[in-house]
Amino acid sequence: MGEIRCEHDSALLTDLYQLTMMDAYYRLNMEQTAVFEFFVRRLPQTRNFLVAAGLEQVLDYLENLRFTADEIDWLASTGRFSATLLERLRELRFTGRVLAMPEGTVFFANEPILRVEASLPQAQLVESRILNLLHYQTLVASKAARCRLAASSDRQLIDFGMRRAHGAEAACLASRANYIVGVASTATVAAARRYGIPVVGTMAHSFIQAHDLETEAFRHFAECHPNNLVLLIDTYDTRRGAQRVVELARELRTRGVRVRGVRIDSGDLAAEAHAVRGILNAAGFEEIRIFVSGNLDEHAIEALERAAAPVDAYCVGTRVDVSADAPALDCAYKLQEYAGVPRAKHSSGKETWPGPHQVYREYDANGLIAQDVLARANEALPGRVLLTEVMNEGRRTSKDPTLAEIRDYCAQELATLPAELRALEKAPREPMRVSSALQALAEEVKSAVSK
Amino acid sequence: MGEIRCEHDSALLTDLYQLTMMDAYYRLNMEQTAVFEFFVRRLPQTRNFLVAAGLEQVLDYLENLRFTADEIDWLASTGRFSATLLERLRELRFTGRVLAMPEGTVFFANEPILRVEASLPQAQLVESRILNLLHYQTLVASKAARCRLAASSDRQLIDFGMRRAHGAEAACLASRANYIVGVASTATVAAARRYGIPVVGTMAHSFIQAHDLETEAFRHFAECHPNNLVLLIDTYDTRRGAQRVVELARELRTRGVRVRGVRIDSGDLAAEAHAVRGILNAAGFEEIRIFVSGNLDEHAIEALERAAAPVDAYCVGTRVDVSADAPALDCAYKLQEYAGVPRAKHSSGKETWPGPHQVYREYDANGLIAQDVLARANEALPGRVLLTEVMNEGRRTSKDPTLAEIRDYCAQELATLPAELRALEKAPREPMRVSSALQALAEEVKSAVSK
Repeated sequence: MGEIRCEHDSALLTDLYQLTMMDAYYRLNMEQTAVFEFFVRRLPQTRNFLVAAGLEQVLDYLENLRFTADEIDWLASTGRFSATLLERLRELRFTGRVLAMPEGTVFFANEPILRVEASLPQAQLVESRILNLLHYQTLVASKAARCRLAASSDRQLIDFGMRRAHGAEAACLASRANYIVGVASTATVAAARRYGIPVVGTMAHSFIQAHDLETEAFRHFAECHPNNLVLLIDTYDTRRGAQRVVELARELRTRGVRVRGVRIDSGDLAAEAHAVRGILNAAGFEEIRIFVSGNLDEHAIEALERAAAPVDAYCVGTRVDVSADAPALDCAYKLQEYAGVPRAKHSSGKETWPGPHQVYREYDANGLIAQDVLARANEALPGRVLLTEVMNEGRRTSKDPTLAEIRDYCAQELATLPAELRALEKAPREPMRVSSALQALAEEVKSAVSK
Repeated sequence: MGEIRCEHDSALLTDLYQLTMMDAYYRLNMEQTAVFEFFVRRLPQTRNFLVAAGLEQVLDYLENLRFTADEIDWLASTGRFSATLLERLRELRFTGRVLAMPEGTVFFANEPILRVEASLPQAQLVESRILNLLHYQTLVASKAARCRLAASSDRQLIDFGMRRAHGAEAACLASRANYIVGVASTATVAAARRYGIPVVGTMAHSFIQAHDLETEAFRHFAECHPNNLVLLIDTYDTRRGAQRVVELARELRTRGVRVRGVRIDSGDLAAEAHAVRGILNAAGFEEIRIFVSGNLDEHAIEALERAAAPVDAYCVGTRVDVSADAPALDCAYKLQEYAGVPRAKHSSGKETWPGPHQVYREYDANGLIAQDVLARANEALPGRVLLTEVMNEGRRTSKDPTLAEIRDYCAQELATLPAELRALEKAPREPMRVSSALQALAEEVKSAVSK
């Protein structure tokens, strides 16, 4: 049946109903412009803000979207689709317009971070993958941002999460999302290469265990990696491990080799870090850094900070890359307008604000976020405009920012969070209001519906 | 810098420290046989059993593992690795042996589902991707199995989870893991094609909203898809939607077209399903099936079953594909033996059972699981042997079972669960004990360690 492309490059990476609906749209000549928006309906209980991420991958997807002859043949073989659809898919390219918040932007519930304006069949087809891409990176960036804010600014975070991220793409995109919010580096080699993220690593317990003696393992590792020597010290007994590092470090010093750090991966990390720091300092090795790992999240980091644990780097992983306390966002990609008419959904508990939107952000005198206003797209309100054009007629309208630029911008964004939103506890309110014009439109659309 | 392969095919899909350790192993001539095992340390609070999944992808990975010239060049460019390592990577193939539990096997904490016996550098390198693959599919299969058990056996489950699965690979592998445990079909087209899973779909709210009238939307969809007509009825008012389906179904009947089903995606699903069933039956449309969706998991399904909700198909998605209540398993891939010597880790809270293992399963008179015995690999105990050879010298030793075979086998496995393990509440105990020979070995290894 021909070669199957990597999932993430395939136009078949969509839900069946998108194709079924496209089939109907083409046959019904329903090809006028549709406006869809991606937003998160409600923040998780444990989030005061979200960080937009994943736009670059969405734009790549839209620019490269096409069905191969082989994929069309497979679709034909299912017997589910009209010849009309198959013909249209053969020539399909995305030719729409996209507006978005820049990656790294802080946002809140009900605020669109992406608006797609395209012919209805095109805008419909791309729903599944747009959700899949924006949801995951936004999820991880939002979780990792809390970790970044919980840690002292002079302490690094490192992404160790590949092994329990949900698959290969998640592992790589998680590294990217982590980096955007200020995580310093990743252990995932493929992500480092693909996105140009600094790559780091220490050593595993297996290296220690494959030796008969821990000391011998340390010495062997030092011989092979004298320039980047971080030793894992908790395989048998953390404090004894630290003593052994001291002995080795003394020996190595005579040869001009320095131990860069030690990693502690188990036990009471605060107590162990204090003890290890004491052992290292007593021997005059104040420069040896302490890395800690093991199910870290923002709460564990906050607890270590409160305990004044002498930690230099927090190695985060699983809990960030699966966003353990909120592994999914209640996000949607919803039809806001078709053929110039505002549309809304009235399903119980899932009502939406009709029409295309703009978000205006107002700051207080200190440059902190005062409030956002969710408005109709054609209103002109005071404040910073958050959604701007990034694609027109299916092509990017400007060069993507580099990952370093996105990261700098995100740091500025996080700096605009008022204290109550930076806090790990739930803030009393979300700083978003709906403009009166949008409220009026919603009433109008709702009362018009007897559909 | 050359073409970057799709993440999931790249040998760079690993953690940096695997390469760093390999570098040391080669230079230290530490290439004797290592035995690593994959197991889950503790079951999540909300799981009484797990279902092994992902083996086929692991074997594909091992058989195809190789570094391209381009990848080697990139590694060289980082300046982190010895010429020795780079040369060895150039010719690297996985040439080890693998034992595993068949996919679909029920298992418990501390039981290995995979054992790798290979030269230390090879066995080390593959850790990250093996964890990444086995963890995710096992996670999803274990969650989906609870949903399958909570639903009446005559009711279908369907996977709708692509949009909030964590990336493209997760979306496709989730469909596979769902199918293994008895989910009937998927909406994810790429997964359907790749794994040969039945594909299904209904329609989205946007289709309804793009029309001025719900009735018109229903009629249009019926014209385009007369053979597979499932209508979404909750966009405005579910019961009015059901009435409109009745009117349309009467019209269509005169033309020989039947409405196959309706989908309800919001509100009190039990109450709505009862009301909709009443409306349909009153009009003589007993054959129209009811699909429900919207944040379903095993608890929601159990509640619908308890309410005797007249549901024909549960459309699961987000909560299953991210395993929302337990989005990661505490799994590990640990060195059990090197150069013939059993190895263990003594880190606080993370102690492991040393040496290679076998798992023996004993059944009661009714064919239900009585207990498992975690034993040393060379013990011969009564009971069914769960780990068998699947790869030798880097090649599969037999043809993979088909997905249909795995699914049938998994159904048999789930049928061997005693009532307390099938239940959604936490069972009082896990049916696993450690053999006395393994306990003796653990004591021996532990007391020998002053390492």
